[in-house]
This record gives sequence, structure tokens and C-alpha cells, in this order.
Amino acid sequence: MKKTLFYCLFFMPGMLYAQQQNLIKYVKPIIGTQKMGHTYPGATVPFGAVQLSPDTDTLSYELNGKYNGDVYKYCAGYKYEDKTIVGFSHTHFSGTGHSDLGDFLVMPTVGKLNMNPGRADDPESGFRSGFSHANEQAEAGYYKVKLDKYDIQAELTATERVGVHQYTFPKSKDAHIILDLMSGIYNYDDKTVWTFVRVVNDSLITGYRQTNGWARTRTVYFAMSFSKAFKSYGQKNFDKAQVYKGFWRKFDQTKNFPEIAGKRIRMYFDFNTEANEKIGIKFALSPVSQENALENMETEAKGWDFNQVKQSAQESWNKELNKIKIDAPEDEKINFYTAMYHAFINPTNYNDVNGQYKGLDQNVHQANGFKNYTTFSLWDTYRALHPFLNIMQPARNNDMVKSMMAHYDQSTLKMLPIWSHYANDNWCMSGYHSVSVIADAVIKGVYNGDAEQALAACVATAKHRNYEGIGEYIDRGYISSASNSNSVSNTLEYAYDDWCIAQLAKKLNKQDIYQEFIKRAENWRNVFDPKIGFMRPRLADGSFKADFDALSTHNQGFIEGNTWNYSFFVPHNPKGLIEQMGGAKKVALRLDSLFTMHLPDEFFAETEDITREGIIGGYVHGNEPAHHVAYLYNWVGQPWKTQERVRKILKMQYKPTPDGLGGNDDCGQMSAWYMFSALGFYPVSPGSDEYALGSPSVNSAVLRLENGKSFTVEARNQSDKNVYVAKVLLNGVELKSHTIKHSDIIEGGKLTFLMTGKMR
Amino acid sequence: MKKTLFYCLFFMPGMLYAQQQNLIKYVKPIIGTQKMGHTYPGATVPFGAVQLSPDTDTLSYELNGKYNGDVYKYCAGYKYEDKTIVGFSHTHFSGTGHSDLGDFLVMPTVGKLNMNPGRADDPESGFRSGFSHANEQAEAGYYKVKLDKYDIQAELTATERVGVHQYTFPKSKDAHIILDLMSGIYNYDDKTVWTFVRVVNDSLITGYRQTNGWARTRTVYFAMSFSKAFKSYGQKNFDKAQVYKGFWRKFDQTKNFPEIAGKRIRMYFDFNTEANEKIGIKFALSPVSQENALENMETEAKGWDFNQVKQSAQESWNKELNKIKIDAPEDEKINFYTAMYHAFINPTNYNDVNGQYKGLDQNVHQANGFKNYTTFSLWDTYRALHPFLNIMQPARNNDMVKSMMAHYDQSTLKMLPIWSHYANDNWCMSGYHSVSVIADAVIKGVYNGDAEQALAACVATAKHRNYEGIGEYIDRGYISSASNSNSVSNTLEYAYDDWCIAQLAKKLNKQDIYQEFIKRAENWRNVFDPKIGFMRPRLADGSFKADFDALSTHNQGFIEGNTWNYSFFVPHNPKGLIEQMGGAKKVALRLDSLFTMHLPDEFFAETEDITREGIIGGYVHGNEPAHHVAYLYNWVGQPWKTQERVRKILKMQYKPTPDGLGGNDDCGQMSAWYMFSALGFYPVSPGSDEYALGSPSVNSAVLRLENGKSFTVEARNQSDKNVYVAKVLLNGVELKSHTIKHSDIIEGGKLTFLMTGKMR
Repeated sequence: MKKTLFYCLFFMPGMLYAQQQNLIKYVKPIIGTQKMGHTYPGATVPFGAVQLSPDTDTLSYELNGKYNGDVYKYCAGYKYEDKTIVGFSHTHFSGTGHSDLGDFLVMPTVGKLNMNPGRADDPESGFRSGFSHANEQAEAGYYKVKLDKYDIQAELTATERVGVHQYTFPKSKDAHIILDLMSGIYNYDDKTVWTFVRVVNDSLITGYRQTNGWARTRTVYFAMSFSKAFKSYGQKNFDKAQVYKGFWRKFDQTKNFPEIAGKRIRMYFDFNTEANEKIGIKFALSPVSQENALENMETEAKGWDFNQVKQSAQESWNKELNKIKIDAPEDEKINFYTAMYHAFINPTNYNDVNGQYKGLDQNVHQANGFKNYTTFSLWDTYRALHPFLNIMQPARNNDMVKSMMAHYDQSTLKMLPIWSHYANDNWCMSGYHSVSVIADAVIKGVYNGDAEQALAACVATAKHRNYEGIGEYIDRGYISSASNSNSVSNTLEYAYDDWCIAQLAKKLNKQDIYQEFIKRAENWRNVFDPKIGFMRPRLADGSFKADFDALSTHNQGFIEGNTWNYSFFVPHNPKGLIEQMGGAKKVALRLDSLFTMHLPDEFFAETEDITREGIIGGYVHGNEPAHHVAYLYNWVGQPWKTQERVRKILKMQYKPTPDGLGGNDDCGQMSAWYMFSALGFYPVSPGSDEYALGSPSVNSAVLRLENGKSFTVEARNQSDKNVYVAKVLLNGVELKSHTIKHSDIIEGGKLTFLMTGKMR
Repeated sequence: MKKTLFYCLFFMPGMLYAQQQNLIKYVKPIIGTQKMGHTYPGATVPFGAVQLSPDTDTLSYELNGKYNGDVYKYCAGYKYEDKTIVGFSHTHFSGTGHSDLGDFLVMPTVGKLNMNPGRADDPESGFRSGFSHANEQAEAGYYKVKLDKYDIQAELTATERVGVHQYTFPKSKDAHIILDLMSGIYNYDDKTVWTFVRVVNDSLITGYRQTNGWARTRTVYFAMSFSKAFKSYGQKNFDKAQVYKGFWRKFDQTKNFPEIAGKRIRMYFDFNTEANEKIGIKFALSPVSQENALENMETEAKGWDFNQVKQSAQESWNKELNKIKIDAPEDEKINFYTAMYHAFINPTNYNDVNGQYKGLDQNVHQANGFKNYTTFSLWDTYRALHPFLNIMQPARNNDMVKSMMAHYDQSTLKMLPIWSHYANDNWCMSGYHSVSVIADAVIKGVYNGDAEQALAACVATAKHRNYEGIGEYIDRGYISSASNSNSVSNTLEYAYDDWCIAQLAKKLNKQDIYQEFIKRAENWRNVFDPKIGFMRPRLADGSFKADFDALSTHNQGFIEGNTWNYSFFVPHNPKGLIEQMGGAKKVALRLDSLFTMHLPDEFFAETEDITREGIIGGYVHGNEPAHHVAYLYNWVGQPWKTQERVRKILKMQYKPTPDGLGGNDDCGQMSAWYMFSALGFYPVSPGSDEYALGSPSVNSAVLRLENGKSFTVEARNQSDKNVYVAKVLLNGVELKSHTIKHSDIIEGGKLTFLMTGKMR
């Protein structure tokens, strides 16, 4: 009997799944959808190409000739505060502070056909519907909401490349499904460059949508299949003028005309529905072609069993979540597993089931020996997300580095990605942090590609003289304030990135490159003003900017962080920084001030992307530059303050509520910070193989690694009060330092924190 | 010695070529470039994908906020009357009356860089240059002109898919080559939907241009290679606004920035040049991808020997021209071989060397077992061009029919092409004349595809109820005047097309289809008003339109021809028409009136696309509907008038001068009419295997057929006065009728006309 059971467990995946804990119950995709989190509540699978989610506004409509208000607000398409849903679109960034996407908005309606989305302040003016959170359910891989206006139950789930909808209609002879091809996130008048649709038959359409947005040249191909044949269909073309419309008058192109193209198009599909009749939609995407979209659909989403797709999506999430099993209070579990969910959304899949993808060169490529990914928000994610993936998703992170190298190969600029998505680079934010991700992956043994080629790509990127001050940086050792608005941020981040390149060169035994870049890595010193003890913009003549306010961010040479935060940005040489700043004692006091000061409103207004709750004193956790700062107490002999601060940040900046994130989740960086810190260690300087120890907030955690080994964290005597660490044991041996090595984790073992309520 | 020579001739293509007559000297591409011919003077190879030709204006610039004047005028980009050249672009229609194309305008300049084309009335305002016809040389496959402003000699030639430029510069440290990606023919503000360029290295760029013009969704990919490295390059972006330009400021994108995209872009490339230094450009096109464009270039245009490419282009023309050797006066030879040249330009190649092409569905297809063609101006070319190709280019016409069938297969409308180009249908003009081309090719044994599938496609097209009145036509037997502005033209042309379908059905022994369509073929009777003896618009209630003027075209139910011309449009049943019109005598008088009447100016103004010289009396040769009419005298017992009229048309409507064409050449239809008529026979009703005899204007002609046989036409005692035919012998046997059969030609043989100066 026992033997039989053993075989069952061994051979039956269903049984294995049953063995896993149900962890998706702790995932609350709604967290971060209110205020500044910029997450979306809809359905996706881990690192999936499709993010099918409700949009409450997308700024696709004009209001008195101008586009409606705050584009920034709708980075994820959905705001928890809103009362109406415009429709459900298939692509969304998670937690960004700039945006794009929102492709292919689908909306089911009943009654007289209305082809305008209408305005939030007058929902009756358009096809949008009111909804209430009471009728809303957001789970990992599943979203459900009732559309009040139409009495339609909307359900969403997804495979990797296919969004699957299920709409439960009331009885109607006038039911519609609208496909809005104009709608998009961060939409401007001429953002949609072109759309093309073929109505293949009465239940299948294919086509593409091409945009000029944050990604300059972007095309998404699709195939859309309906579970029920539509009885008729049509389009409304909102193009201002159509050249050569004359000959098109040979047909009535507004109704049942199957060859559709234009810049501003909405389509509709008509149905008769019985009471509670469900109509399903499978909406497949491809970066390459309509045919690939169809192949993706046929491969991933056969048949019309919505619940089976949903179950499969949720199983895929549960499988990922089960890689870390934590013991913690319920709220902590919600925070942790939701963070894990948000971290495992990005980067996203960007190739078809046949391995094809569109490259930066706009050519079609075959991904040989890797899976291609896109959406690299690297200024954010190099810090903790990619290091986290190096532990928990090394195979995927290896593919991500390969995707970055493919980007480099296809780049005529010969640059690694800065902030790339959908075969484009938008060059957002400072630094060239690809090199950090690459160095970290090589040094931690995760990257199995050609490391020398990777080093060459890093060096070429770092020597790209005409990119954002690099030439001056190379010549002068810093970027002068007049030549670049982020002169100090860039100088500091380049210095760190150069250190990463040096580490990589050392690893590959390239002494000349090591020497060159380890020297560049000390360039942070050139923007440090010893007179005031802060990083400070410097002029070309070597003098420091006279008119300078350490609390201010704007026009001071910084981005998303003032000098109070940025002055600590020497993650690769805290010892050198502390020395430069006047020693441990002085720096400890400085850190205390940062966490306890009051940031006046005028300066708070200059911090971007965060709520008032996104800061602690002057420490801005909602933005990334200071994410390592709480750990610096370890270097000034006050590790208990690291422990205390980290626990405070975990508590204050992450809550299991819609407004639970104090700033943009930034493609998982905020979430990765959470997980690292909750587990008791953090990668202060990716590119090194060390993690700084903090204060775990879980009682225990077991990390199931891809190599089959397990790493266990135990926090004995753990509580909200016992945030201090009395002693740390690695595999039973007390640690003398406040660091562990990557190999300590990856080789498996146990890290035991003995917690106490008393500062040491 | 003799034996050696024999082997040389047999084995050496060069020697074979030497054996051929030099006929390209009779080709004057400049014919038709003045006034209404709408031909272009530039370089192309037979049926080539590239038509590299100077543009004297393309309406790509604004004048006081409005686009400059007469778009119609610049269908071919070049007007002989103009004094300036804007540049040399790579795609041109030959002889159309509506337009598109003009992609990738290249212009060499010297001196201060000017990125505006400037205006014709103020050439100094832009990069355009004055030129003079004295310094211009237009040959088959070669074009040369001196650009006066810059003292640059410009030379152009082409392979099938590659335009090859050679510019001879003066000594300069400030020489430029401009690539204008905004410019295009029939250009409107938002016609260029998107452009994308990669500067791969210092002598190669690739990219694409996407337009929304006459072809609604059109993308042309390119690869451009320079024989000399440019020293620097840049772009000027004329986009009104660019979303998200912010992050692009990280680079100076105007100069030496290799990743370029936008809607309105001009690029420049800088050089130092020595006196008389030649810079070459190879510019390859592809309908599919940048990579295919590169492959096309590497396959077809290796190295930098301009003269070799030129020689090869001219050899390919000479090979085609040598298929018909005529004996005729010099002017006649010029007219004939230029007509042959113009006829062998269209349709054009539309697949890459690897066989890929973009289909109507915007998917990439592999052409299996055929070569894909585009540019089907079928309303024009079904009449004489495709029948001519069935005799002289059956392999190509077979592929053209296969291309039309591929279009049908890719069409969600399930329609054969109407007027198609570049993976689009613009549905221009009346009728569905694909069916004529298909029936003619099947009946003449040219089409080797599945004829039953072809018939099914014809039937589906002819039953497409919601296309231009077909539903009403089926129900009522005619299209009523209120429902369609070309109601009579369409009714008449549908009836002829239906007869073609009937013939095809008969050939395939599909009796039911034959019966259905042979009945429809008589629908011409339903728009014939016996009271006035003319075709006349009819109302839905069966009454004829009251307010009707037989001289007028506009709003009378006709297009490009009034009822005087269109009343004869029953090419498939002249006997029935003559009966209906009141008998042979009456019809003969009517024909006489048509050719001798005076068309008052107010009605002439309504005929489109022609000059005053484009009409003879009221007979409009410059448009197509009456192209068969001169041959109808054969059916009313006055064949000598056919002979006389045909000779008069040949003489009056075709001259070896720039303004030598009385109307648009219409993708070779006017030229094919010329060749048929000059050879003494004409396909009055394509879809039948008969040709009506006329009066040959050549002394003799030998047609070398693809099957290895020859067909000889001899016109004994031929002269400008001896235009009448006393007797016709086929292979020495006197003909009793005024017709010959297709098999008479294709089986080889000799047709002898005994000419006389006296009417019979």
C-alpha cells in the first residue's frame, strides 16, 4: 500500500501538485493598484507575454480637444479608486512609472451599440461600465468582475501567450463584444501608427497593431477566436482623413467587411445570447506575425474549457510560489507571496512557441538555445530582482542575459539595453545597468553563454562616448552639471557599473580591462564635495555648483532621489565612502538623520512616483537609489540599526491592501527588495557574491533551488518586537561577519538567526 | 573554321547575344513622358520590381499649408515639361491615371546641405536641381542626366530587384547624398505611416517605409549600399510631434545616430569627392524584410561595376525585344519597340530571390511553383496586354494568373483582384476583369494551374453581392442608376465578364455554371434603350433616366467614356449588339459618326486622362472602353473601315515623341493595342480564341514563340497609302473570314496580307 502511494506521488503530476501547498491564496494582485503601486489586477502567468487586465482608463479619448489629465496615473491601466471599467486589454507593465502597451481592449456590452468609451465622469456616454470591488475577484492567473451596466460577468485568465476571456451574458438579442484597436495606455493622438484586421471567418479574426509610443517602433500581432460565431460585425473608423477613400466606397466597409485597416479603428461583433450564456474569447499575441499568433493559440489554448485554462494558470503560479515555503503570520504571507507574484511577472516572454521573435533590428529572429524576454526596467531591477532571480530562477535569468546579449547583437549602436521593451530601447533612467545584471549572472555562475562576448558588450556600452555624458565621464572622471541634468546620478551609477565590469574582467582574467574599470569605479569621489560631505554637481572647471540644496532633486544633477539619498550610492565601496565621508561615526549619524529627518512638502513634491507613505524621514523607499542604504549600518558598526530600519521599511512600505505599496513596484524591484529583506539578507552590490545580513521577518523559510538543493532560513524567537539579531549561524556555525556568500545559499544549508528584542 | 564558329555560337551566350539584333536602340522611354502618357523615363528590367527613375515632382512638399496642385499630373513622378529634378526614386507605375509609389528618393548634392526639396518655381530654395533634356539620355535599362546645379552626372540602371546609381561628382569637401524617406508619389501629409532605418556600417543601411496610399497597407523594405564609405551622416525629422522624445535626448539623434525611425524623415550622407569621382549606390527592395532586401542585393548585384549591370539590363531587354523582329520604317520601329518595352514593364515582380512575398493577408508567403507578380491594372490590361502576353510571354502570364489566384486565396473577401498592387486591392474602375484574364489564359492553354479552382474563384467574385451593385445586377439584370454612379459601365462590363466565365465553364464542361453565366452575359440588353439606340442608365423601376445626354460622361452611369463609346461595349456578342441596334447599316453609320463627330469642349473636359489628341471625332482612344470599336466594322460588312481607322489610330495616337501618347499608357494596354494592331490582328473579346483582322502597319514581322515556333506576318505592298487589305492568306490559303484563331499563331505559320490603296 505504501509502495503504491509512493509510485503515485512519483509518477503523477496531479498528485505532486496536490502535495504542494496552496499558496496562490496568499497572492493578492489587487495590492498596489491604488495610489502609486502601478500594478494591475488582471490575469497573467509567470513571466507571461499576455497580461490580460481591466483598464479603468487609458486616456484614449479626447476631452475638449485635449487628452484627459494624468497619463502617469494610468501606467497599469487600472486605478483602484476608479468606478468604471472601459474594457480588458492584453498587455500591461507591472509597477512602472512611465508606460505604454494596453493593446487590444475588449469590452462586452448589451443593448444599443455605443462605439465610444465615454468618460469616467459620465459613464452613460460610452460603452464603459460601472463596477464595484464587492463584485471583483483578483487572483494569480484569474480575474473576475461584474459589469454593472450590462449585468455581464467578466472572467479572465491566460496562458503564456494567450489571453482567455469568458463573459456570462444576460438574455439579449443585442449583445456585443467591442474590440477597441485605438485604445492604449499612455495614448496620444497619433500613437497608433497602423492597425490591420482580417475577419477570417465568423469566429476568428487576425491582425496587428503598430504603435509609436515609449517603444518607438512596435507591432503586436494577434489572433482572436470566439467560442460562438458572431451574427454580424463591423467597424467604426475614427481616422481624421482617409486618403483614397473613394474606391473603398465600392463596399460598405462599416458592416461585415472583412478587410480592415486604418489608424483609429474600433470593431464590434454582434450576438444573440441566452440568459447566462457564456461567450469565450481566446486572444493570442505574437511579436512576429498573425500566423505565429494563431500557432501560439493552437498550441497553448486548445478547446473552450475556461476553467481548465484557469486551473493551469493557477497551477503554474502555485508551482513557482512553492519554491519558497515560509512560516509567517498571515499578513506577512500575503505580502511575501504577492511580492513573489509581482517579482515573477517581469521580464516577460517575447517569443513565439516556434521560437521566433522580433529583434531590436526589426528583423525576425529565431531564439536558438534560449527563450527571449523583453521588458527590462534595468535601473530598477538590477538591484534586487535579477539577483533574486539568480537564486530562485537561474535558468530564466540566464535566458534574460542571453536576451540582453541578443539585443546588443542587433543594436547598430552596439549598446546593451538600458530600458528596453518590445524590440526597442527607450533609454529611460540613468546608468548602464545591464552590465550589473550580466556581471552578477556570470560571477554567480548562472550565465552559461560566452562570458567574454558578454564582457565585450559591457565594455562597448560603457565606452559609448556619445551616450549621456559617457565621453565627458571618461575624459574628466565625472559628468559636469551643465552638460547633463542627471550629472551626479549618472556619475555615481556609471562608477558602480564600472566596478561590475571590473569584477567581470577579473573573473575572466582580463587584467587590462580590470585595471581600466576598477579605476573608473572610483569616479564617485569626483562628485563628492568634502566641504559639505555630500555628493554635489560639479562644473566643467572643477568647481562645485554654487546654488545647491541638499534636499532638492530637480535641476541638482539627480533623478528620483536627492543627495541625501544619492550620497550613499557607492554600493561597491561602502568602506571607501565612509572614509571619504569622515568615518563610521559621522556616517552613522548621517544615516540616522536620513531616516528621521522631515522632508518639507516642497521637496517631497520633487520625488517622483511615490506617496507620502513612500518615505521614512528623508529616506525614499518608493524610489530605488537608496534601496541598499538601510544595510549600510552594517558597515558603520551598528548592524542593529540595519535590522531595525529594514523591519520598519518592511512594515511601513508594504501592506496587504490595494494602497499597500508606497511607490511603483517597478517591474518587481520593490517586491524583490521585500523578499530579500524578509528572508534576512540583501545584495547591496550586485556583481559581488556577497549578501548583507539584515533581520528576517519570516519565522522560517525553505528555498527550493533549481539545483535540487534547499536553503533554509530560520528566525528563532521571531516577533514584531524581536527584530534584532543576537547571533547568526550558518549550518550551525556562528558567523563572524554580517555577510553570507552566494555559494552559501546555492550549495544548500541553513541560516539561523537568533532574534532578540534588545539592541546589541 | 566554320565548325568552330558553330560551336561558339552554340555555347557562348555572349555570342548569341551578338547574333541578336540591337533593338534597344529603338526603345525611347521618353515617349509618353509629356502630357498624358504618364510613363517614366528611368531604368527598369522586363517586369522588374525596381523602376528607378527621376522625379521632377512628387507633391511631397507643402505650399502655403496646402499640397501643391495637380497630384494627377505626377502619376509617374516625371513630367517632360518640368525644368528641375528632385531626385531619383525606386518604384513607379507606368502610365497609370491614379498613383502611388515613388519610394526612397535619392539625390546627390554638393555644397551647403539643404534638406528641403524646394519648389519648382524656386529651385534654389531646395536640393532639387535644374536639368536640360540636351543632357539627358533615356534608354531601356539605363538613364543618364546632368544635374546642372551641382555639376553631377547621374546614371541609373537596375537589376530585377536592385536599383543601381552612379553619380559622378565634382571635387568637393561638401558632397552629399540625400535619402528622402518622406517623398512619395501622390503624397499626402499622412501618407507615410512609418519609416525605420538602421545604419549598419559606414556604407550600408537597411530599413523600411510603410505607406497608406492607394495601397492602403503597404511596406517596402530596403537595403542601400554605398561604393564609398560616408564620412558622416544624419537625419532631419519633420514629424509634427514626437511622443516620448524626452529619453531620446540622451543621444544627439540628428547626426551619426544609427537607429532612426519616424513618420517624416530625410537622411543625408556626407563625402569628400575628387574631381570626376564616381560614387555608386545599390538599392535593393523587398516586400518582406530587410534581410531579404540584402539577399536580393547580394544575389543580383555583386561588386561595383555599373557598366556591367547596365549591360546586363540592356541585354535582358534586347532578349525580350528580339522575340519580335519587324521590318518597318524607322519611326514605326521606334513606336513598336517602345510599345513592347512599355508592355513588358507590367505587371511587376513581387517576390524575393528566395521566393518569399507578402500576401494580401499581410502574411509572408513562399511562392511555390510560380513567380509572384503585382500591379494588376486589370480594367485596362485584360483587353490587349494579357492577350499579348498569352502569345509572347505565356510562361509569365501563367505566373500572373497564379499570382491572381494567390491573391484570391489570401482574400478574406474571397475576390479576385480588381486593381491590385503591393499586397493590396484598391478596387479601382468597373468590372471584375480578372475573370477575363483567367478565362483567356485557360482557353488558350496558357494556364497550367488548377482550372476548376480558377473557375470557382471567378464565380465567387462574380457573385459577391455586396461589391459594387453585383447583388442588384444579379437580381435585376442591371444596376440601377441611383445605386451606382457607374451603373451602365458596370452592367456592360459584368455582362462581358460573365461571358468569360461561361466560356471557362464550357471549356471545363460545367454546364450549370455555363448556363447561369451565359444568361448573365446577355444583361447588356437591359441597359440598352431601343428608343434612342444607346446604352442608357436605367432606374430601379425599369424606366430609363430622363435627363440624359449621350455626349456626357459624368453622372450618366459611365466611367471614362460616354455612351457613344460604351454603347459598343458588347465585345462578346457584336452580332447581337448590331441586331439590337437596328442592323449592320445603321451601326456602320453610327460607327462613322463616332469617328467623325465633334466632341464639344464641355464634354471633352469630362473624358479623363487624355489630351485633345487622344480622341478621333468622338472616339476616345486615350481611354480603354472603345479599344475594340474600330474592329467592329468587320461585323457590319465594312472591314476596309476597320483597316482605315486602325491605321489612323496607329498614326495619330502613337508618335515617337515625348508627347507621343494620346492618353495614359495604362500599364501597357495602350502599347499592347499598338502592337496587336501594327501586326494586323486584335483580340476583340478576350476569352475567345479568335482575333479580328485589321491592317498591319509593319512590312513584316516574325514572332518567336516560347514553344520554339515562329509566326510570320507579311504585309505585301505595304505603305501609308496602301492601308487596305485586298486578301489575307494563312499559310498560303486565303481566309474567308476576318478572323484568325489563337492556334493559328501558336502552331506557327505565316499570315500574309496583300495590301492595296483602294477600298474594297
